[in-house]
Order: sequence, then C-alpha cells, then structure tokens
Amino acid sequence: LALVLYDFTAEPGNNELTIKEGEMVTITNQNIGGGWIEARNSQGETGLVPEEYIEVRQSNVDSSFVFPVIHCSVVSVTDHSLKWYSGRRDWSWRLFVGFPPGAVDDDEWDDEWDDLNSPGPGSAEPEVEETGGSNKAEAQAASKKINLNKFPSFSRSGPEVFLLANLPPRGKDKISVCVCPIGPVWLYPSLQMDCVVADPKKGSKMYGLKSYIEYQVTPSTTNRPVNHRYKHFDWLYERLLEKFGSVIPIPSLPDKQVTGRFEEEFIKLRMERLQGWMTRMCRHPIVSDSEVLQLFLTYKDEKEWKSGKRRAEKDETVGVMTFSLIEPEAPELAVTEVEQKCESFSRFTKAMDDRVKELLTVGHDHWKRCTGPLPKQYQKIGKAFQNLSTVFNSSRYQGTETLTNALTATGKMYEEIANIVSEQPKKDMHFLVELNNEYKSLLGCFPDTINVHKAAIEKVKDSDKLVATNKINPQDKHTMAKRLSNMSYSLQAEMNHFHSNRIHDYNRVMQLYLTEQVKFYEMIADKLREALNQFTTI
Amino acid sequence: LALVLYDFTAEPGNNELTIKEGEMVTITNQNIGGGWIEARNSQGETGLVPEEYIEVRQSNVDSSFVFPVIHCSVVSVTDHSLKWYSGRRDWSWRLFVGFPPGAVDDDEWDDEWDDLNSPGPGSAEPEVEETGGSNKAEAQAASKKINLNKFPSFSRSGPEVFLLANLPPRGKDKISVCVCPIGPVWLYPSLQMDCVVADPKKGSKMYGLKSYIEYQVTPSTTNRPVNHRYKHFDWLYERLLEKFGSVIPIPSLPDKQVTGRFEEEFIKLRMERLQGWMTRMCRHPIVSDSEVLQLFLTYKDEKEWKSGKRRAEKDETVGVMTFSLIEPEAPELAVTEVEQKCESFSRFTKAMDDRVKELLTVGHDHWKRCTGPLPKQYQKIGKAFQNLSTVFNSSRYQGTETLTNALTATGKMYEEIANIVSEQPKKDMHFLVELNNEYKSLLGCFPDTINVHKAAIEKVKDSDKLVATNKINPQDKHTMAKRLSNMSYSLQAEMNHFHSNRIHDYNRVMQLYLTEQVKFYEMIADKLREALNQFTTI
Repeated sequence: LALVLYDFTAEPGNNELTIKEGEMVTITNQNIGGGWIEARNSQGETGLVPEEYIEVRQSNVDSSFVFPVIHCSVVSVTDHSLKWYSGRRDWSWRLFVGFPPGAVDDDEWDDEWDDLNSPGPGSAEPEVEETGGSNKAEAQAASKKINLNKFPSFSRSGPEVFLLANLPPRGKDKISVCVCPIGPVWLYPSLQMDCVVADPKKGSKMYGLKSYIEYQVTPSTTNRPVNHRYKHFDWLYERLLEKFGSVIPIPSLPDKQVTGRFEEEFIKLRMERLQGWMTRMCRHPIVSDSEVLQLFLTYKDEKEWKSGKRRAEKDETVGVMTFSLIEPEAPELAVTEVEQKCESFSRFTKAMDDRVKELLTVGHDHWKRCTGPLPKQYQKIGKAFQNLSTVFNSSRYQGTETLTNALTATGKMYEEIANIVSEQPKKDMHFLVELNNEYKSLLGCFPDTINVHKAAIEKVKDSDKLVATNKINPQDKHTMAKRLSNMSYSLQAEMNHFHSNRIHDYNRVMQLYLTEQVKFYEMIADKLREALNQFTTI
Repeated sequence: LALVLYDFTAEPGNNELTIKEGEMVTITNQNIGGGWIEARNSQGETGLVPEEYIEVRQSNVDSSFVFPVIHCSVVSVTDHSLKWYSGRRDWSWRLFVGFPPGAVDDDEWDDEWDDLNSPGPGSAEPEVEETGGSNKAEAQAASKKINLNKFPSFSRSGPEVFLLANLPPRGKDKISVCVCPIGPVWLYPSLQMDCVVADPKKGSKMYGLKSYIEYQVTPSTTNRPVNHRYKHFDWLYERLLEKFGSVIPIPSLPDKQVTGRFEEEFIKLRMERLQGWMTRMCRHPIVSDSEVLQLFLTYKDEKEWKSGKRRAEKDETVGVMTFSLIEPEAPELAVTEVEQKCESFSRFTKAMDDRVKELLTVGHDHWKRCTGPLPKQYQKIGKAFQNLSTVFNSSRYQGTETLTNALTATGKMYEEIANIVSEQPKKDMHFLVELNNEYKSLLGCFPDTINVHKAAIEKVKDSDKLVATNKINPQDKHTMAKRLSNMSYSLQAEMNHFHSNRIHDYNRVMQLYLTEQVKFYEMIADKLREALNQFTTI
C-alpha cells in the first residue's frame, strides 16, 4: 500500500498510470527500475508511476501517519531491514538522470566510469539484487531515463525516518562520542593524520587527446604519494557528502573551472585550496577514519582504486542512517536540552556566517584598493618627486647634486612602495580570505544539518501525542528519544570539533596576517628612512 | 608732440577730443589731472584725451621711435629727470579708480587711510607737486574718477624706458651686486634678519564695531614686538611690489578671506603663512634692508607708523627705475650673454612652475585619499574583526577568550590606525604643500620680470640699427648696453638667491616630510605588533 504524494499525469502509450495526491494505491511490481513502480489504483487500473511520487506505508499503523520518503533510489535490501539510499544531497533530478557527481566536469565521461556501467553517459547506477517481499517496501533501480520536467523538487524534511527505522546489523563501522568536561567530543586518534598536496603535473589519456592536471597527495601515515586529478577529489567529496553529510559539515571543493585551468596561477591556487580541503578532512576523526578516505590516500594501483571506488559507491549506510553508527557512552539527553543546544548552534552558525561574509566583503574591497588606486597614488607621488628633481638638476646651480640625488632616490622609493603595496594582499589578506572562504563553505553546510535535527526534534516532541493516538507504541517513543539523544550528541561533538578548529585556524591566520602586516609597514618605513638618509643637513 | 596709441571717441559735452590710433597730436595742457591731458589735433581742434591713450614723444628723435608708456600716473618730477611711477603691477584700472591695493578687504576703509586722503573710499592717491616744463613729458594726477570702460588693458612692455631715462641723483639708497665664484650675488648682511609672527589677538576699532585679528611681529634685530593686522601686511606687500617688483619676485600674501576669518584654524593657518612670507622677505638682502620693511618691523608708535607710511608711498624710485639702484662692481656683460642667461632662467622657472604644480596636484589628491576613503577602509576592517570577535564570544566555547580578546584588540587597533591615517597629512603633506604654494607664488612673479628683461634685451639688440638710423646717438647706445648689463647682473643675482633658497627650503621640507612619514609607518607597525602580541600560540 502506498500513499500518493504528488499528482502525476500518465503520458499516453507509456503504460503509465495517472494518480492524484492523497490517493492510495497498491504496489503491484517494484522491480521495474529506473525510478518507476507499477501500481494499481482503487479503480483497478494498473500502470507505471514514478517511485518518488508515492510513499510506501507500513501496514500496521494508521495510514495518516507518514514517513516521508527522502529520496529516490533504494539499494539492496537484506534481512527484512529497510535501507534507504539516502546519501545524495542533491536529491532531485541528478539521481534520476543518472549523472554521477562530478560528471559536469571539463572532461567527457571518465573511462573508469564507462567500464563499470552501460555505455554512454548517464547510465551509471548501483547494482541491485532481488529480495523476498515482506510488508516492508522494496524497490529496485534500473537504467531508464526519466523526463526531468515531471519531478518537483523534494522537500528536505524526512530524516526523522531514522528515528524509527530498523537499523542495519552492527558492523565494525562505528563512530564514538566521548563526554569530556568540555562536552561531547569525537574520539580523536592519538596521531592526527595529515597529507600534503603538491607537485602538479600534466597528465593525459586517450593518447594525449585529453589532458588534465594531476596532483601528488602524500599522507603522513604511509609517506607514499598517490596521484589524483581534480575529478578524483570531486568523487571523494561526493562519497563523503553522501555518507557523512547529514551528520557533519562536508565543505565543498574549490570551484570547477574550465577556462584557464592550465594556467600556472590557477593551478597553484587550486592546489592550495585542495590542500586546505584535504587538511580539514584529515583533521576530522570520522572522515580520517573512513574507508573512502583511506582508499583515496593509500590505494596501491589502478585495480585497487577502481574496485575500491565501486565498493564505496555501494555503501548502504549513508545519509541520516549514518546517525545509527554513532555510539555515545553517555546518558540519554532530554528533548528540552537537545532543542536548546540545537537552537544555540543554529544561532551561532548563522551569526558567524554573517560576520564571515562581512569580513570577506571588507577584505575584497581592501584588496581592490591595494592593487588599484593606492599604488597609483604612490606612483604619482614618486614621479612628481623625480620630475622636480630633474628640473632642479637643469638649473646647473652649484651644490645642487645632493638634493637632486636625494629627491630622485625618494621618488624611486615611492615607486617601489607602490609595488610593495600592490603585492602585499597576496602575502597577508590572501590567507585571511582563503580561511574565511573555507569557513563560509563549512557554515553553509549547517542550515541543512540543523534542519535535519529540528525535524527530528519536532517528531520527538510529538511522540507523546503519537502514542496517545496510537500511531506509535511506547517502545517506539523510547526508541525515538534515544535516537534523538544520539543525534544531539553527534551535533554537540561536531560543534565542539568546529569550535576547536575555529580557534586554531583563526588564531593561526590572524597571527600570520598581522605578522605580514607588521613586516609590510616596517618595510615601507625602512625604505623611507633610506630615502631620508640621502638628504644632508647643509 | 604725442602719438596716439588707441582710438578714443569724445563724449559730447565733456570738452573731449576724438583721436585715432597713429595720429599725432600736440599737448596743450598737461595739468588737467585725473588722467586727462588737453591736446590739439592736426585739424586745430582742441580737447581732453586720456593720458594713457597717448604717448609723449621726444622732440629730437625720429617720431617713429617709440618709448611705450608703461603706466598712468606720474609723480613729482625734479631736475628735468623722468620719473615714472611705475610700481603697481596691476597697471590698468585700479590706479585710475584710485583703489589702493588692499582696499577690497574684509573691512571698510581704514581710518588711517581716511586721514591721509579725501573722504570716501577710492580716493587715496599719492600727492603731487607741480614742476617746471621741459621737452620731457610731465603730468600730474588729481582726484577725478575716470570711467573704467574707456581704458583698454595696457601692454606690459615698456620698461626699456629705463635704458635711456635720466636717472635720479645717486642717493645712499643702493643695491650691491658682488661677483662670486658662483656668479653674481646680492650683498648679504653678516647677520641675517629674522622675525617671528605670533600671538594672534582680537583687536577692534570704532568702539568695537569693527574687529580684526592682530599678530605680534618680533624682529630678531630689536626683539621688540610690534602689532600688525592683515591689512598692514598687505600694505607692506604693495610697497615692496611697487619698489622692487620689477627687479625681484615679491610673492603674494596668503589669501584674503572674509568668511570664517575669526575661526581658530583659519587664524592659525594664516599666521603660519604670514610667518613664511615674512621669513622669505627678511631673508632677501634687498628687502630686509629696505626702509619700508624696517618701518614695518620697528615703528615705535602710531605717529611714526603713519608718517612712515606716507613717506614710503612717496618713494619715487620704484618699478623699473629700481634697476638704477643696482651697482655691480663687475665688467659689462655682452648682450649675447645677457640674452642667454635670461633665456635659461626663463626656461628654468617655467619648468619648475610646471613641476611644482604637479606636486601640488598629487599632494592634494593624496590628502583627499588619506582623509576619506583610506581611513574608512581601515575602519571597516576594524569593525569586521570586532564583529567576528563578538560572534566568537557568543559561542561560550571554553578557552576562546584569548582569541576573542586578541581579535577585539586587533579590531580596535585598526580603528586607531584609521584615525592616525586621517590625521597624518597635517603632519607631513601640509608642509610640503605649503612650501610648494610659496614657490608657486614666487615662480608666478617671474614671467613678468623675465618679460621686462626680454624687452630691454630686444631694445639693446636693436641699438646698432637705431644709431645707424640716427634715432639714438652712440653715447645712448653705450648707456643702454651698460644698463642692460646691470639689469642682467641683478637677474643673475636674484636667480642665485632663488636657487640657494630653493635648495635650503626643499632640503628642509623633504627631510621634515620623510621624517614624519617614517614615524607614521613605524607607528602603524608598532600598533599592529601590539595587536599581534595579544595572540598566543596555542
């Protein structure tokens, strides 16, 4: 039995079924694939409907209680458990048209992708297995292109499905939260992993027809470098986002860029940013521990890389289900505390986001001034002094040389100062801007994350009512509360991780910035002192 | 006999005579006054014509040889000598309408002026005496208002009248030029005079109805302060300009200003500028030696001041006649050398004028930037840091205080830097601008002076031809050459004086400017270092 969430009008000749929002239909065949399900309406008519448009109902609860489906494709199901392939943040059309993340790249389809899947772009999907039926919903994905225009954008609510879902069996895959005096924290490794991104080189494939830049990535654990191009970083990003993105903020990679991507400045800047991103990923205990990052940093050969990628893409514990991996050894938190902490983090991240953006705006304006009008001013001053000196020299008045030489030297000094001024932002403001861009990206992840938590909080706050109206049983209520508490521990641990890194990062960058600023002004003072010394007191 | 220089149409009923340019008329009565002369044309018609419109001719020379009249009113003549009251630089209408220089002041007419002259503004003229006639022109001035519109502006040529004029008997009033290794120089006193302009106070007259600011002027020679208001400085300027303006550059006073003249900033700035002007006057051996400056600096009481002023205004040796006071003890210079030196000084003063104006423009722009956009930029940076700090503080994360305090301190430091930046031009650029304004004023005097010399040079270059065509006799030619040589010595002496002061002044101001600049950048570096020290390496 399934509830229709959205209207759908059948296209003639396609074996499709028209359905209306709120209608109940019976699923007759889930194995169509490509995002379609066969269903029968109350009139007995059968046809295909988009999987996303309906919501499977659990048969032993009131049909008005809804677990909204968070996304579309469902992967293999074992053991009567409900697994939702809920990783992709960009939940809407990208999944259905089958574009793997990173495919809108400067290049055509990666050969590696082609090996895995049916030929032609847009046909990569995870493999599916058939399973036995039960009163739980099952579906399978297959290659069938869906018309984009038919899908409205999904609401992003619904992660509370985690609150009552049947969890997968406990694997070794677990995320520990400890409670310290400071509060809940992730369990950090004794030795923090690091990696160095360096040595950009031009690589090519298809007999030189396609070229790209490869970076050498060297983790501190093995000290053995591996090569990766931007596309690979992007693949890593998508995997991390999928698996951990509901739990921790996974900041986006530096921009894709098609034009000018072989230019030295661009490559250098991109490398710097990839370095920053990798460092931040390595610093996070959850990420540094993850198989996918380990694969990325330590794969031995192409074969291992390719099979590792396939395995990573088949990971079933993704999205909000990742919360199930979290094991705080700590007492259950009351929903009021959970709510209060969530609200406080929401306010903080919003406020910091504003101030970070303010700093970026100010920094950008200052950069423009330092590389435009200000050096021009110094240039003009320098030229004016030199011009005056030239005139003085033309007087041929005896004893004029010291003054004219000193005046010329002063003029040239101001021209040097003009250059120093225009080069300075790259030495100080650059790092301030880069860090704030990283934090803007990080902070940009929080609204969605906070919403996941808020939605869950609301559900738990409702749980008494739900028990009273027999929508859930008291055991369910307890489960929900426990799971919400786990979610909160993870949010608090993540906030403490965020704050700790924030303090470290801003402390470092401010010291770097101010150190360079001091050097800058001292250098100008030195130059002017040098000019001053050329004048003699007659 | 007189040549008509410009057309003049008689106004009916005024006893005036219509004359045409190029016409010859006979002077019948020179004692009309107020700028009029009675003349008779070739038709026998008699009437009044403007004195300025005709040019008296010497009877024993060819009537085509012209000594253009340089200006209008002529003062007392003694001993058959030709004296031209050729002082006022602004030669045209101001003399005829009788406005004494400085009369367009913030105040009404000065009572002191009123004592001297007929009542009412615009009626101050120098006194005149009647003299015997001769074949040299004589005229007298009297109080008669002339219609401004009738007078075309005068050409400024004509100083070559000095070349052949009968000189006044040698008085003790002489200007020495010595020839040193460096070239011709003025004879400098062993002890240079100085004076201090200070202590502005409000004075008043007419029972408090009129107020003004008085400055205390203390010369180093007497150490006894005298009081002078701006009007007096202006009177002094006019006297100096009159007497010495053809020979040396007399820079103009700081501006007259009507509104805001009692404001502290304005008074302070005006005083600074009057000080600069007085210093420059005292430094010039010719000026410092002059009676008029001595009067200005050392008068004992009101009586002495008033009678001294009257005497100064009656000085007959003014304008180009001042050249007659110059006595170089040096061989006569050939006209080629005179011309070459004159040309060289002309080029130099023009070129320096351009560069001084360039520096003033650049300085002005820089000032605007330092007091507007730049401090605003620093303010914004400071605010952004403080705002970020406030957000950080709101996290309540333990161990965050050091960072937030340091960040706040940094923000406040940038706000302080903004203030330092906006106050800085008053400490350095101000002096650079003031000096260049003084030099702009000085250099502005040279074009006229150079033209005086050029006109004389042309006349002397023509002198062979004039002898050949019997316009002058060989003795005249010799006189002209000698006098031209004297003029050249004085120009060279003045250029050497100018260069020597230029080097001294620019050397001083550049050192002042750079010293302040060094302090400025060092101060900013210090402030930033202080902020940096608040961050600790965790």
